[in-house]
Amino acid sequence: MAAEKRVAVVLSGCGFLDGAEIQEAVCTLLSLDRRKARVQAFAPDVPQMHVVDHLKGEPAAGAGRGVLAESARIVRGQVKDLAQARAADFDALVFPGGYGAAKNLCSYAVEGRKLQVNPEVARLIHDLHAAQKPVGFICIAPIIGAKLLGAEGVKLTIGNDPGTAADVESFGARHVVCRVEDACVDERLKVVSTPAYMLGPSVGPVSQGIDKLVSAVLEMS
Amino acid sequence: MAAEKRVAVVLSGCGFLDGAEIQEAVCTLLSLDRRKARVQAFAPDVPQMHVVDHLKGEPAAGAGRGVLAESARIVRGQVKDLAQARAADFDALVFPGGYGAAKNLCSYAVEGRKLQVNPEVARLIHDLHAAQKPVGFICIAPIIGAKLLGAEGVKLTIGNDPGTAADVESFGARHVVCRVEDACVDERLKVVSTPAYMLGPSVGPVSQGIDKLVSAVLEMS
Repeated sequence: MAAEKRVAVVLSGCGFLDGAEIQEAVCTLLSLDRRKARVQAFAPDVPQMHVVDHLKGEPAAGAGRGVLAESARIVRGQVKDLAQARAADFDALVFPGGYGAAKNLCSYAVEGRKLQVNPEVARLIHDLHAAQKPVGFICIAPIIGAKLLGAEGVKLTIGNDPGTAADVESFGARHVVCRVEDACVDERLKVVSTPAYMLGPSVGPVSQGIDKLVSAVLEMS
Repeated sequence: MAAEKRVAVVLSGCGFLDGAEIQEAVCTLLSLDRRKARVQAFAPDVPQMHVVDHLKGEPAAGAGRGVLAESARIVRGQVKDLAQARAADFDALVFPGGYGAAKNLCSYAVEGRKLQVNPEVARLIHDLHAAQKPVGFICIAPIIGAKLLGAEGVKLTIGNDPGTAADVESFGARHVVCRVEDACVDERLKVVSTPAYMLGPSVGPVSQGIDKLVSAVLEMS
């Protein structure tokens, strides 16, 4: 029997407007669990960019929230500070989406093509990539892969919004149109992506695309 | 082709220590979506009993949170006030678990057998039940079914903790030991339950039990 694959999942909060897209995150965990992977969730120990009232769809007044503590909600407390994550301890890495990926893991939501990537996120991706281990990006998270691996001509999907696809290509990455039920595999660079809620329309098809991403990531690890 | 089933899912916040168990909620939505049900999420428009830091596992200082707005995080904003839910508009009703079910939908976490059930929760269950429509309870949520339908001798599972099972039986309900991968079906009263994270151990088996619950609920509707 093949050894159990060890997979790090990086969360960015809890709720698609200011954190990780919850349905994408759970579909990722479910697919990994069904495929017998051993999962450890991580999140950066930083404040959220802001807090959004998900009922009104508007920024909320009042206390801020922390990305690490909010991410803990999705994984029943079993999350570690991303600064503790070592590439040597994992066979693969997966980033669920949600605006949190573009607000708390990098600054794409605010700065567009001038985005900065959280240093711990950048370090972990570079270290996995240097070790030829696969990395999966879901929904809007491929913008991080485009920024970090664009110079190598990484092939990615980010849905079919022309502006966002153009941003992906501005870094040298190649954008691929992909159905929500499918995943885009760059075998050369071991990078897998799926549009998820960049396309929608509901959790069923989103889960299919994520399951294909997880399957491809585990196969390449 | 059979008509699309309309299912109300009642959430209790966002995070298992003070709200809905997120993985159970998403597995419920996923199973319903795959089975082509039309879902509407609801939550009571009340303050959470408290806010728990899910990293530390302890109550958090600072601002309170509302059950409705936090529930909105799980369903991308598509949640309605439970007071608007009408039994005539739905073929079935499902309650995911998490401490939120015992803290925000009823007072079991604080008052044990003296629990009070949120009036809108009680109204909706009674109205569905009176119309012979099925109701599903996941994890700790069956305590609500036991309180409201115990006098009819409802058959339920709530995991295998003897104290909790004794509480279920104190209302006249019959507790059934059930594996996490299975669901307990009371065909007479059209009540379905599954232990989920009352037993654990991970999202894969929890999703199997929830899928059986959803399947049974849809079959009886």
